[in-house]
Amino acid sequence: MLTVRELAELVGGAVTGDGGVEIHQVAQASCVRSGEITYAISPVYVEMVRASAASAVFVHEKQDLKIPQILVPDPKIAAIQAAMRFGPEPSYAPGISPGAFVHPGAKVDPSASVLPGASVSRGATVGARTVLMSGVSVGENAVVGEDARIHPNVAIGERCAIGNRVILHPGVCIGADGFGFYPAGGTHQKIPQRGIVEVGDDVEIGANSCIDRATVGRTVIGDGTKIDNLVQVGHNCIIGKNCILVSQVGLAGSVRIGDGAILAARAGVADNLNIGAGSIVAGMSGVANDLPAGSRVGGLPAYHHMDWKRNLVHMKNLHRIVRHLEQLAKRVSEIEKTLLQKD
Amino acid sequence: MLTVRELAELVGGAVTGDGGVEIHQVAQASCVRSGEITYAISPVYVEMVRASAASAVFVHEKQDLKIPQILVPDPKIAAIQAAMRFGPEPSYAPGISPGAFVHPGAKVDPSASVLPGASVSRGATVGARTVLMSGVSVGENAVVGEDARIHPNVAIGERCAIGNRVILHPGVCIGADGFGFYPAGGTHQKIPQRGIVEVGDDVEIGANSCIDRATVGRTVIGDGTKIDNLVQVGHNCIIGKNCILVSQVGLAGSVRIGDGAILAARAGVADNLNIGAGSIVAGMSGVANDLPAGSRVGGLPAYHHMDWKRNLVHMKNLHRIVRHLEQLAKRVSEIEKTLLQKD
Amino acid sequence: MLTVRELAELVGGAVTGDGGVEIHQVAQASCVRSGEITYAISPVYVEMVRASAASAVFVHEKQDLKIPQILVPDPKIAAIQAAMRFGPEPSYAPGISPGAFVHPGAKVDPSASVLPGASVSRGATVGARTVLMSGVSVGENAVVGEDARIHPNVAIGERCAIGNRVILHPGVCIGADGFGFYPAGGTHQKIPQRGIVEVGDDVEIGANSCIDRATVGRTVIGDGTKIDNLVQVGHNCIIGKNCILVSQVGLAGSVRIGDGAILAARAGVADNLNIGAGSIVAGMSGVANDLPAGSRVGGLPAYHHMDWKRNLVHMKNLHRIVRHLEQLAKRVSEIEKTLLQKD
Repeated sequence: MLTVRELAELVGGAVTGDGGVEIHQVAQASCVRSGEITYAISPVYVEMVRASAASAVFVHEKQDLKIPQILVPDPKIAAIQAAMRFGPEPSYAPGISPGAFVHPGAKVDPSASVLPGASVSRGATVGARTVLMSGVSVGENAVVGEDARIHPNVAIGERCAIGNRVILHPGVCIGADGFGFYPAGGTHQKIPQRGIVEVGDDVEIGANSCIDRATVGRTVIGDGTKIDNLVQVGHNCIIGKNCILVSQVGLAGSVRIGDGAILAARAGVADNLNIGAGSIVAGMSGVANDLPAGSRVGGLPAYHHMDWKRNLVHMKNLHRIVRHLEQLAKRVSEIEKTLLQKD
Repeated sequence: MLTVRELAELVGGAVTGDGGVEIHQVAQASCVRSGEITYAISPVYVEMVRASAASAVFVHEKQDLKIPQILVPDPKIAAIQAAMRFGPEPSYAPGISPGAFVHPGAKVDPSASVLPGASVSRGATVGARTVLMSGVSVGENAVVGEDARIHPNVAIGERCAIGNRVILHPGVCIGADGFGFYPAGGTHQKIPQRGIVEVGDDVEIGANSCIDRATVGRTVIGDGTKIDNLVQVGHNCIIGKNCILVSQVGLAGSVRIGDGAILAARAGVADNLNIGAGSIVAGMSGVANDLPAGSRVGGLPAYHHMDWKRNLVHMKNLHRIVRHLEQLAKRVSEIEKTLLQKD
Repeated sequence: MLTVRELAELVGGAVTGDGGVEIHQVAQASCVRSGEITYAISPVYVEMVRASAASAVFVHEKQDLKIPQILVPDPKIAAIQAAMRFGPEPSYAPGISPGAFVHPGAKVDPSASVLPGASVSRGATVGARTVLMSGVSVGENAVVGEDARIHPNVAIGERCAIGNRVILHPGVCIGADGFGFYPAGGTHQKIPQRGIVEVGDDVEIGANSCIDRATVGRTVIGDGTKIDNLVQVGHNCIIGKNCILVSQVGLAGSVRIGDGAILAARAGVADNLNIGAGSIVAGMSGVANDLPAGSRVGGLPAYHHMDWKRNLVHMKNLHRIVRHLEQLAKRVSEIEKTLLQKD
């Protein structure tokens, strides 16, 4: 619980109205409740705040509202600062908890935290200040760097390597076998998948996403790349640095993605393609060809995004286009009839 | 093992044929085996039953079949009643199992069951009769209500709140960080995600679905809403009551969905949109605009479902439409030539 | 660490160049490093190898490269053999590890391995040489066959049956409740899901995929079927033998799929449909009708793949088609004007 005045101090803002009002949480305008502070960054937000039970609000400049206001240069950043105060990241005592399973042949830095139910296999290494939460499984000879936060029930397969300051959200699977089979008399025989996954520094991977191990060699997630939830990365993909893969994206095997590329939600890429650096693939699109650096594409198969956007409008009007065509055909028939009669 | 007669008593039906036949399981007509009872709700089903090894069948009225029949008002409901008898829900003794990890600062109701390998963190609360199965992780200060059933390997993040009678299937992730970054010199800097998820009463969420925590404030799943497997709900979404989100649906951030809306399989919604109450979005569609209450839409971007359905037919015929257009163009050229000659 | 000469012996190949060079790993040409061997199967690969730091290479015939080469009939197979040598599958001692939770009423074969944090419930059976890794949960009366490898955090629901030589990758969920509700006064009432899942022999299921239990009876995955990551299989589906379901595929309820069918990435199938044996559904397609055996389809809804491919080209050109139509309309108007003037 903080007063509006204390919150204003926290974020470096100025109070208008009653600075003594007590605030216990921050929330977005669409669901803010009494006792909470919210933020407004546009007239639409101001109206939502007016209609809400908010007890205070962060604003850029004074608004015509009856509740106390905290004036700040960036109301959303102030709200985030407040949120960090009301709900700080949990911290974990260093050491191996009772109920954690660390193989005697594993090396866990004494400053790392291994929570109950986490498991570290023979030969694995866990770096300084890294946290392995409950249910995390680190396979044989896998390496987890420093300052990583590995959330519950993440599975890191044998020999895979995770960089420093990596965040893996719950249920992430690093290093399951790639999907590779060869046909044999109507059955599918497994091609051994004995490569690894290498996750660079400062990577974040969302909940329940899957990065398959390479058949041979490595599947690579470059430094600084951010991957959302429920994303599939096939075996032997090489993803560059500082890429963005939004939720439900799927990459088939051996896709190479250049630095800084952005794949919007549920974009898919067929196997063995090159996506040039800085490319942007629209959501729900399917890439079926190599893309040069800086491409902007959409559609299935994906092509230049401006053509695609124009076509989306035409597709929506397709029934009108067809009617137009039919009417034109009638007019042409009429003309043909007229000309015949004239002969 | 029950006789046909005993099964008929169980479901309140009437036997025709040998009531002494012994039945050990119930199965659908497409895979029923000897010793099992099945059900038929249409002539197609009756034919499947005739071709099967089923030992008995639930029917609405007597059919020309050689096996014993149980006549009931609703054969599928009778089959479900039988299934509940042959395979009841497991029950769990109250208490904290050996091998469960409950922080001394957590409050677990004595009637709750915490199974081996489940973990309850400092400050968390678990309500009466709730079951936490193996590998479940309840974060710091999280709250799980009464009569909830939390299946294996579910992760509930710190401070998140789960209502009463909630069912979370295996691998569900509540409260992973939302996907939020700001650009800084070619890198993506993390925007702290310090809000929570609030899951209302009577909600069911399918296996491996992900509900991200809000940046600030809350992501809300309203009372009675049912979510299928592998669904993605982004940060700060506000989903109303009694909604249906079918498998593989994806919601970007800050989507608001009104009560009773239905999103069919793999529908997607772009960020910050409002889906009005009672709207129905067709499967595999992508919503890119606000929808008023009661909308029925399909397509990418989604628009009125009747127009969309007509257009689907036209798209399938597009090669014919193009040929029609080319033929028409030839006829027009012919006409133009004729007119020129006449001049 | 092996010399090139030792590697050549391992794979039955012939060395050209320095056989004494030491190699510690194998990697694909796109990311191979010094100290590693790679493989080349085409001129494109040879160029990648030339530009790389590779210390040796598997080739089919001698190439103009300065590094040692190992000549083999199939360079990719040789690379896989090397990968198996440098990174063999981990092996696990038989027995129940400390920190595993096996109910006294469960039957675990003495040759099976149950790793720390795995949980086997009352009445469950685990066959010979099967490995249950950390965090695996085997429900009441479930059966896991022989020589199965169940990766971390897999959940197998009560009474479900897993065949011999099955591989379940991390986070797989077998036997969560199907998604079934009936409407009641604006709410959705749960239809009990009391059937099971039966997974045949030699099945492999990818990370975080979900196979729902039947409402009554069984959901069946036939022998030899291979399922990739993040796939959804609804309740009561019957999938035949030796099928392939690529990543992010989704099957609604009660879909039947014949032997040997292939569903490419992110294909979807609506409920209650029959996909005939040997059918191939293109990636990102949505099947909305029964398909006879041997069908090849694509699109939404899916239809004959050749028509669909032609239409994809037309859709990309739709803005040109519309312009053509508009120009033609102008010409027809001109003609009509001319004819009127002539009258």
